[in-house]
Amino acid sequence: MSRAARLKQFGKPAESLVLEDFPLPSPGPEEVLLDMVAAPVNPADLNVIEGTYGDLPELPATIGNEGVGRIVAVGLGVTGCSPGQLVLPMTFGTWCSQMLVPARHLIPLPDGLDTNQAAMLTVNPATAWRMLQDFVHLAPGDWIVQNAANSGVGRSVIQIARALGWKTLNVVRRPELVGELTDAGGTIVVTEEYDLRKELKTLCGGARPKLALNAVGGPSALNIANALAPGGTMVTFGAMSKQPLKIPNGLLIFKGLKFGGFWLNRWRKTADRTTLTETYAALARLLREGNLFTPLHVIHPLTQVVEAVGAAGREKRAGKVLLDLSR
Amino acid sequence: MSRAARLKQFGKPAESLVLEDFPLPSPGPEEVLLDMVAAPVNPADLNVIEGTYGDLPELPATIGNEGVGRIVAVGLGVTGCSPGQLVLPMTFGTWCSQMLVPARHLIPLPDGLDTNQAAMLTVNPATAWRMLQDFVHLAPGDWIVQNAANSGVGRSVIQIARALGWKTLNVVRRPELVGELTDAGGTIVVTEEYDLRKELKTLCGGARPKLALNAVGGPSALNIANALAPGGTMVTFGAMSKQPLKIPNGLLIFKGLKFGGFWLNRWRKTADRTTLTETYAALARLLREGNLFTPLHVIHPLTQVVEAVGAAGREKRAGKVLLDLSR
Repeated sequence: MSRAARLKQFGKPAESLVLEDFPLPSPGPEEVLLDMVAAPVNPADLNVIEGTYGDLPELPATIGNEGVGRIVAVGLGVTGCSPGQLVLPMTFGTWCSQMLVPARHLIPLPDGLDTNQAAMLTVNPATAWRMLQDFVHLAPGDWIVQNAANSGVGRSVIQIARALGWKTLNVVRRPELVGELTDAGGTIVVTEEYDLRKELKTLCGGARPKLALNAVGGPSALNIANALAPGGTMVTFGAMSKQPLKIPNGLLIFKGLKFGGFWLNRWRKTADRTTLTETYAALARLLREGNLFTPLHVIHPLTQVVEAVGAAGREKRAGKVLLDLSR
Repeated sequence: MSRAARLKQFGKPAESLVLEDFPLPSPGPEEVLLDMVAAPVNPADLNVIEGTYGDLPELPATIGNEGVGRIVAVGLGVTGCSPGQLVLPMTFGTWCSQMLVPARHLIPLPDGLDTNQAAMLTVNPATAWRMLQDFVHLAPGDWIVQNAANSGVGRSVIQIARALGWKTLNVVRRPELVGELTDAGGTIVVTEEYDLRKELKTLCGGARPKLALNAVGGPSALNIANALAPGGTMVTFGAMSKQPLKIPNGLLIFKGLKFGGFWLNRWRKTADRTTLTETYAALARLLREGNLFTPLHVIHPLTQVVEAVGAAGREKRAGKVLLDLSR
């Protein structure tokens, strides 16, 4: 029997999210049955529930875009994974106690990982990892500039960059985060008030970032674009300000900047198996070495999914809201 | 003795452009002496004279960013080119009757080219060629969308695309250009009023361009970006509207569009010799085959450089203004 958090209609969680119990069949050929362990409540989940996300499921649907599970049983023809193993399902609908997943959509994890941390590996750390790998070649000592540095992805960027020998110039909205993100490993942390083009010499000693990561849009995006070295690249993966990117033509023509975007859902659907496996192997290694860590705010059992969604929607949290899917 | 059009100060051509005669020494080692044949007056030249261009020379300076010459004499150590040969100097200051150029900055041309047409090969056709080669891979039958399709670069894009089997969706401001550009080889020509996203199915039969070429900025740029296929690229190389590019975040994140820029001056300074040679060899071939042709409005002798600049500044011309540098 699986228990799942099902969305009946888009709207307020208390009215639209319900728990349903239903039996699961034994895994068919090439299928795997998982006992789900844990899953976070991400901002994208809140947007799916509200019906404002860019890519909405047909309803009713089980919610959840990442999580970690343990293999209970494997169907005929499944090779390379076995009962007891911890895995990341690359499918949606993770907020449930058990799920059936095609074996080709499972990423096996090494033993000995913190399962709560592993539950949060699929989305934010992978977004950070791919954006740091896919757009420019970064050499040791190179700088990256990012806004919304306090976001889940932003913190992953800081941690991955530090582990790989890259430097980060981090922009945050709230001044009280400057000290906190510096402690978390940000090379330089400043608030949005800094005109980066003017202050760059003081901040980075003349070095200019090759890569800008933009989760805000509007003036904040332009500020970090202005900090880029000629020929540099800005990758947009979020739009917290809900304002479009306004690019002066000279940045494109004379400075040769490049602007691209990243969306993890597209990457998950289109990446080949080798890239997926290598990405999560690299992230699992960073996790095990203590170089990647996502702070937790609170853990709710799956039975309290509505409370968990409410907690995740509140502005000031110390970290992620996690669902314990075994309860 | 060389006669050159020299800019004394930025401002109105009649007050700032003067003709000066001065003796040239014999070519030194690795140097080549050219009899200049012809050079066009380009919009960028007008902006240099006004002092509004992105990359201004130190004054006084000889004006002209392209042209064609014939080798008169070569210095010691010069190989691969000889007196009588037609060449493109990859240096600035082409509005003169004779010039000394380092041999490494000369691109030899094949015999038998129309010299007036060859004089206009360096800037617009090369801009079109590189933008069509350097950003996306175009297969036969693929579509390109561009605004300012009536510009020098726009007409080169139409001609090159037709010769290579690509289709062009061309946007112009003035309705009277629709027929003219269709005759010139544009697959589809429409005015700025068309909402390309809505009309694309009718216009291109469901096909979506992989590449957008933007010389305007502002709403026109967004219109052609909206026509792109998911993952497509827009290259900005001009900003006639003087309005910045305003990119909705969804085009970057969800549609995966890429935005870059192209500036011929940077390419000329940074491209390796093989790329330069291959680019102009390809363009000379298209010219000789009759696939590339730039219409002429009027030819002025160098002695009438102020009149030539005036003519180039007027809105409605039938084609380019050319300087005959032998007179």
